[in-house]
Amino acid sequence: MTHEHAAPEGPTVSQLGEGQLLDAFLPVATTEGPHVLVGPGDDCAVVAAPGGSVVLTTDTLTLGQDFLTMWPSGRRTTGADLGRKCAAQNLADVAGTGAVPTAVVVSLTLPGNTPVQWVTDFAEGLSRAFEELGATECALVGGDLGRGEELSVTATVTGRCVTAPVLRSGAPAGGVLVHAGVLGHAAAGLEALQCPVPGAWDAVPAQLRDALESAQLRPRPPVTTGPALARAGALAMMDVSDGLLRDAGRIARASGLHIDLEPRALEPHVNSLAPAGEAVGGDPWQWVLTGGEDHGLLAVLPVDSRLPPGVRAIGSCAPAAPGTVVPGSGANPGESSRRDPVGPAVTIGGRTSQQWFGRDVVEGWDHFEP
Amino acid sequence: MTHEHAAPEGPTVSQLGEGQLLDAFLPVATTEGPHVLVGPGDDCAVVAAPGGSVVLTTDTLTLGQDFLTMWPSGRRTTGADLGRKCAAQNLADVAGTGAVPTAVVVSLTLPGNTPVQWVTDFAEGLSRAFEELGATECALVGGDLGRGEELSVTATVTGRCVTAPVLRSGAPAGGVLVHAGVLGHAAAGLEALQCPVPGAWDAVPAQLRDALESAQLRPRPPVTTGPALARAGALAMMDVSDGLLRDAGRIARASGLHIDLEPRALEPHVNSLAPAGEAVGGDPWQWVLTGGEDHGLLAVLPVDSRLPPGVRAIGSCAPAAPGTVVPGSGANPGESSRRDPVGPAVTIGGRTSQQWFGRDVVEGWDHFEP
Repeated sequence: MTHEHAAPEGPTVSQLGEGQLLDAFLPVATTEGPHVLVGPGDDCAVVAAPGGSVVLTTDTLTLGQDFLTMWPSGRRTTGADLGRKCAAQNLADVAGTGAVPTAVVVSLTLPGNTPVQWVTDFAEGLSRAFEELGATECALVGGDLGRGEELSVTATVTGRCVTAPVLRSGAPAGGVLVHAGVLGHAAAGLEALQCPVPGAWDAVPAQLRDALESAQLRPRPPVTTGPALARAGALAMMDVSDGLLRDAGRIARASGLHIDLEPRALEPHVNSLAPAGEAVGGDPWQWVLTGGEDHGLLAVLPVDSRLPPGVRAIGSCAPAAPGTVVPGSGANPGESSRRDPVGPAVTIGGRTSQQWFGRDVVEGWDHFEP
Repeated sequence: MTHEHAAPEGPTVSQLGEGQLLDAFLPVATTEGPHVLVGPGDDCAVVAAPGGSVVLTTDTLTLGQDFLTMWPSGRRTTGADLGRKCAAQNLADVAGTGAVPTAVVVSLTLPGNTPVQWVTDFAEGLSRAFEELGATECALVGGDLGRGEELSVTATVTGRCVTAPVLRSGAPAGGVLVHAGVLGHAAAGLEALQCPVPGAWDAVPAQLRDALESAQLRPRPPVTTGPALARAGALAMMDVSDGLLRDAGRIARASGLHIDLEPRALEPHVNSLAPAGEAVGGDPWQWVLTGGEDHGLLAVLPVDSRLPPGVRAIGSCAPAAPGTVVPGSGANPGESSRRDPVGPAVTIGGRTSQQWFGRDVVEGWDHFEP
């Protein structure tokens, strides 16, 4: 993988000491906030945990695997884009627990030829994402800078609960499945980014293509909707990082029930992607049902709950047919990572995904799937 | 960098799904502990923060940069070694704040040809380190698995304070500088690992060489001594990850004073390395004063304090000579990372490092130093 950068001018990280690099990085980053008791500069940061507990999540983005600096379509992933995406996917995990993000530590692994400007752009993108996504209590409190052959960033985010934490396992039969955010945009955007110019995606209206590519490069999960859903009584919740079918299956399995998606409720999502699907011969239903990385929120509420703004009902929960679903044992290991073929745990208008598509589909994203 | 592994037999990560890999990983890991409210399996873990706050640190180890799987000396970094080292350096940061480790999240970036056995060995090494280093309240509560060309692990650890957090900036003039742990062993061990067989290090007694290589591969920082020092009244503290001169300089600068190291107090450390120094023509004083990665604890206590077991006085704090030290402003950015030439902030028996060595020395470790 060639490691190209937009700005070959200016110093690279190999020309600076670690301290100088931090002197460039930290002033651009948001390092103060209401929960920061001790910020960058000591062995540890100290973060307030108002309720006596803290929620905690971590995610890594690696060049060549999770993003490219230069895409076949001609778009670039800038440092600011990666800062935004790194923030967004971690903030969405905190939101998916019904919590409010409080602090971030970031570890950057950088090739020596990385422009310093890229690093400060990253810090700026991270801080912009806090603002734009409404994570106004969140600050960068520490981290680690190291060298490597492969550009890679890992963020760990803490959050404070506004209710008891909302897990995957609390959904009841009779509950209503709701969603906030986009579905399929990041997956369609990935295809657009991977399509050279000239190519099939030239037939897609430029504005739509641009919006979809942006959804992949800097997703905008509904971070403030997580705590709103918790306050509205959400009984189970997660963010959709690996595709709707796969992630709904996780809630179904963890809660020991069956989920049926309502096709008509998904039609607006499908329709928003239809012009792209028609132009490139793609299936908008597949993007909506199986596309990952949108980081919208999927939750289960008691029926007749008042839905927060931006939240729409998209399905319902029913008792599992005997033998079809492994009941949630509380031992469900692995954030977004069980190998869980959707099987009959999730249906679309009463049909399995195989019946729905008329063929076998990969029901979501797996980092290691052979 | 060739990515060789000890066990070419058995499945590799590319032959498993992410869920299967976690099914192999998590049962080997310590995932329960007194502070785990929600462990692996949801978008976030939830960790108790008994005092209403949590300390937080993160560190990355990257193949080729921070370790080799196969060293010129013939030793290997096994998965278990890397798990131990990853735990040790993060636990030392928590200890360096005077806190007790409570929880860890780990992000693993793995090439497809990584044996699954390597991954479970890593989990086991992490858990062993919790036990061996006395981090008995600590558990693995979540993480992230991803693919990449370059093997890399990032751990983020939370801790609970037993007193107010002990920072770098609290040392008073008149305070006594103390240390716990080894000095220079990891640096000497790195030279041993990098020396081919046959080679200069063959002249070093095998037992000593082995001990030094092990100090580099799986450091054993005095994790429980951190809270003990906090309770004993430590006013400033950090772990020595980048070398004694450099890190003492950080306390001096953050606290706005001058530190003088007592050569006789360092002699036991120097003597323990003397046989290796003689055999290979190395300078044990340079290992002791500038070697990184030992992760011992460096603290400042009021004079006449009762020292916890394993803690030895190694120097003293005095007012800074005018113009020699930038007083601690509280704005000291960057965990272990200011570019801070020791200058006159630290002396050895009243002599600058240049006077002590009779030449210029690099006073510690910098990930990006040109």
